Amino acid sequence: MTTPAPVDEAAASEALRRLRVEVDRELETALPAEREWPATIHRAVRYSLFAGGKRIRPALVLAAGEAVGGARQELMPLACAVEMIHTYSLIHDDLPAMDDDDLRRGKPTSHKVFGEAVAILAGDALLTRAFHLLAEVPEGWDEPRLRRRLRAAAALGEACGTTGLIGGQVMDLESEGRAIGASDLERLHRAKTGALLSACVRGGAILGGASEPELELLSAYARAIGLAFQVVDDVLDATGSAEQLGKTAGKDQAAHKATYVSVHGLEPARALALRLRQEALSALAPLGGRGALLSAIARRIVDRRS
Amino acid sequence: MTTPAPVDEAAASEALRRLRVEVDRELETALPAEREWPATIHRAVRYSLFAGGKRIRPALVLAAGEAVGGARQELMPLACAVEMIHTYSLIHDDLPAMDDDDLRRGKPTSHKVFGEAVAILAGDALLTRAFHLLAEVPEGWDEPRLRRRLRAAAALGEACGTTGLIGGQVMDLESEGRAIGASDLERLHRAKTGALLSACVRGGAILGGASEPELELLSAYARAIGLAFQVVDDVLDATGSAEQLGKTAGKDQAAHKATYVSVHGLEPARALALRLRQEALSALAPLGGRGALLSAIARRIVDRRS
Repeated sequence: MTTPAPVDEAAASEALRRLRVEVDRELETALPAEREWPATIHRAVRYSLFAGGKRIRPALVLAAGEAVGGARQELMPLACAVEMIHTYSLIHDDLPAMDDDDLRRGKPTSHKVFGEAVAILAGDALLTRAFHLLAEVPEGWDEPRLRRRLRAAAALGEACGTTGLIGGQVMDLESEGRAIGASDLERLHRAKTGALLSACVRGGAILGGASEPELELLSAYARAIGLAFQVVDDVLDATGSAEQLGKTAGKDQAAHKATYVSVHGLEPARALALRLRQEALSALAPLGGRGALLSAIARRIVDRRS
Repeated sequence: MTTPAPVDEAAASEALRRLRVEVDRELETALPAEREWPATIHRAVRYSLFAGGKRIRPALVLAAGEAVGGARQELMPLACAVEMIHTYSLIHDDLPAMDDDDLRRGKPTSHKVFGEAVAILAGDALLTRAFHLLAEVPEGWDEPRLRRRLRAAAALGEACGTTGLIGGQVMDLESEGRAIGASDLERLHRAKTGALLSACVRGGAILGGASEPELELLSAYARAIGLAFQVVDDVLDATGSAEQLGKTAGKDQAAHKATYVSVHGLEPARALALRLRQEALSALAPLGGRGALLSAIARRIVDRRS
């Protein structure tokens, strides 16, 4: 059995910081300026997109794509698209008709600032722009590049649809206040959180020209971190403060939502997160040093405090 | 100057009826079945998508694409996508936070039947599936076909974004109860209604392999019918009954919304619609018989009673 390559933590931190800066710069140019007509919607879109997100999803796209030899420039539109989609899903999830949240990343949610109508439209706009961005390709691209772009867009479309992101949110709404079992809980989160995270990794790998075996091991990595992400979210919701999280803490319990903590208990949930982190790292082992950044992201997902 | 080819009305009616049947069959298979998990969202999506829409937008895609020699099979995904996007925009526009409409096509609106949360998600799901569908291409397509698909998707993305559909809705919300002038009114409707109708015609033409001159004349046609559509909507809202329209009549006036009727008067609005119809038909003249179906659609848009 191969073991994960040792990682220089400082180098990984610096690499992720630089990716974040670069993604932010690309997002900046991928959207109309605030002053452009109609200004309200552009203000609302930018308010949420630049609210201090950690850019984990774009980092996954870039790290997965570069791990298999992809060029950053070809990966960047997908990196921007996944962050737009993540942001759209947060804006819509926070709406009064959904989770009715007032705080997100330490700031008032979109509908609190711009009203419900504009918040709904800001989400719609981000979802639309994400796919629009993927459809924009330079003149002169050859057939394999065009095909990879379409394949990555299709993977993203599936992840965001009614068997992914949207399906998970529907199941989440329907399970509120009801006891659901461990397997339904896992299904919910594989759809609501896992599908998009998987699409980041798989989409990046597709754009990077991954071989089938590479795609398979990256998919295993993606499944593990996707679930780990949600388990850690639940642990943080049960143990963190609003100040730490930048959003209302203890909400799941107050809403009688099933979580990994309520279903399995706090310590077993923590142990599950560590096990999933190990699974993710083991999946990367065959990539050797090329998987260093993906390893660093997996560790950050599990070890984060907010 | 060339004049439009004479048209066999009965043949055009029959052709449009057959297109509608075919589009409905394709839409049926392009979406998960109602019983599929999570059933709620699939019920909601299908409730609105199969609520008796006239399928004008898919007909425009197919008619424009076939007018320049495109194959129906290659046009059909875009035909389905534009109807999904049209339906998503209706579901979101009808929400309490937006236009707060209870009736659409003679039936209770989505949020009345499924609640606001599911209605928001049903709109999101249709928007997502539209672009997902366009990203799905058969193995073996060559570079020109892949490029045309991406170009059509990009045209659709632009039409649905903040300078099109969404921008128009923002402007609509912001102009409620305020006096706006003729030029702002036209800008609003070019964005809210015209952009998507244009994307149908232009997208169909792109997929059909239109030459630049063909694309230009079809764009002129699209601009004229796009505006005509809204002018006729305003005339119908001012003069029709809820029974005829299948939606609440007289709403614009009640909401003090600027319309072509309130800004120009009823008769000038009717005259404008006829003038735009003529503009559309003239634009098609160089296509001769190949433009017959597009002519028939233009006449139906202006002469409709609901």
